[in-house]
Amino acid sequence: MTRTIAQQAELALLLEVGTTPKPGNVDRHRDHNELHFEHFLAGAVGASAGLEALADPDGPPIGVAFERAVEGMSDQSGGNTQFGGLLLLAPLVRAAALGELTPDRARRIAEGTGVEDTVGFYRAFEHVDVAVADPPEDMDTLDVRRGSGAVPAVRQRNLSLYDIMERSADHDGIAREWTGNFERTFDAAEAIKTRDGPVTDRAAAIFLDMLAADPDTFVAINHGEEVAENVRERAAAARDGRVDPGTLAEELITEGINPGTTADLLAGGLFVALLRGVDV
Amino acid sequence: MTRTIAQQAELALLLEVGTTPKPGNVDRHRDHNELHFEHFLAGAVGASAGLEALADPDGPPIGVAFERAVEGMSDQSGGNTQFGGLLLLAPLVRAAALGELTPDRARRIAEGTGVEDTVGFYRAFEHVDVAVADPPEDMDTLDVRRGSGAVPAVRQRNLSLYDIMERSADHDGIAREWTGNFERTFDAAEAIKTRDGPVTDRAAAIFLDMLAADPDTFVAINHGEEVAENVRERAAAARDGRVDPGTLAEELITEGINPGTTADLLAGGLFVALLRGVDV
Repeated sequence: MTRTIAQQAELALLLEVGTTPKPGNVDRHRDHNELHFEHFLAGAVGASAGLEALADPDGPPIGVAFERAVEGMSDQSGGNTQFGGLLLLAPLVRAAALGELTPDRARRIAEGTGVEDTVGFYRAFEHVDVAVADPPEDMDTLDVRRGSGAVPAVRQRNLSLYDIMERSADHDGIAREWTGNFERTFDAAEAIKTRDGPVTDRAAAIFLDMLAADPDTFVAINHGEEVAENVRERAAAARDGRVDPGTLAEELITEGINPGTTADLLAGGLFVALLRGVDV
Repeated sequence: MTRTIAQQAELALLLEVGTTPKPGNVDRHRDHNELHFEHFLAGAVGASAGLEALADPDGPPIGVAFERAVEGMSDQSGGNTQFGGLLLLAPLVRAAALGELTPDRARRIAEGTGVEDTVGFYRAFEHVDVAVADPPEDMDTLDVRRGSGAVPAVRQRNLSLYDIMERSADHDGIAREWTGNFERTFDAAEAIKTRDGPVTDRAAAIFLDMLAADPDTFVAINHGEEVAENVRERAAAARDGRVDPGTLAEELITEGINPGTTADLLAGGLFVALLRGVDV
């Protein structure tokens, strides 16, 4: 194995977008109108300096390194490609840099974040438009869409990035990983490791399992919870062989439905699987 | 632009394999039996440390950095993915690190190589099986398939990597670039720059133009010159609209014909185009 931890993370992002079919997402065989496969290639390469900062045990706070990764990711014309994937990878990469990558070590990294991580997180929204949920009314000053404008309020309240993730965990699948021992991520990694065949074929099967198991929160934010539940049911039909996954992929692309959080979870799972010895 | 020179080179490798249709090559929509798309993703990521060494003006001799890139590229189970592409990129990346990337500057880098570059080049063959032509009878001790075993003969004759490329230019399209002002590479870059649309669509058109213009030397080495000329004619038919390029792609994959040198030239052209401001 000659790949560094940062390179494994970058490769995980590339394998994620290379995995097909991945119903609703940009994948090896499908683009959205404005968001193309090649934007994800550039996004992954652009993120690499930030990933290296995350993989440095003495590197900057993970929120600051995350902002660097998002800035580099954004150097392409498609828009948001891997914001959620990088947010999930951030604590995982830093944990891997400090020892064996376990849920416990990743949890300690997440819980150990401070206000500087939060500042980096908010600044990351300056680089790219990210679809997010409306904040609760009393949280308006902390709306991530304010970007750097929210930094004074963040500092005043001395909120850690873990605090922010706790406030988002009810409606955001990545925040739920941060505050829930990265359970789905590590489960995905083990499932990838257990299966046979090319890693991207394994990943396609796991993607469908995940989409069939839980409504995608990115779909819920963009289209409502009913649509997210409908997508989950259709993914279950594809998983169970009642619908061709390729057909579902075409349908969701046509409907403009992009289960991006499930793709982000897959990227995290691929990263853990690569570190645990899955070959490409 | 936040991407470094090394990152542009890595992205060029990724955009090359993401370009489709690229008749006969692994591309976004097609695999060969043993050589898959995901192997190229891992190859590009793995090459990045070597590309960084190439992009360092004070870095090691380019042949030594090339060996590092090939070693990293080889950390996947598909075999040779981008050996030729990296051999073409090596002088281009170093030239770009020293100033504006022009044919003249690239030529001076190529001509300025010494015996240590050649040693690195030969050692690179230790990391991966590369299809090459038989050497002339009096060159048997310099057969690249000897890998490090040829190093004593290389040192004794004090051959530069440019010398080696001169001896291969009649049958190898990459060596022809090294010794011919990188003419096809820079032509490809300008053609990519001139066209409109997504960069991978532009690249697909240029690939067909190149394959229609000159017989692919990798096809000639593996299948003979007649087959290479036949592929060139079929590519011309596809370029002229007499055959669907996707159909030709399917045919060549079925026939096991892989015009790898033309793909390598495209990777070089994409690198130059990215440096000259083509957006992704």
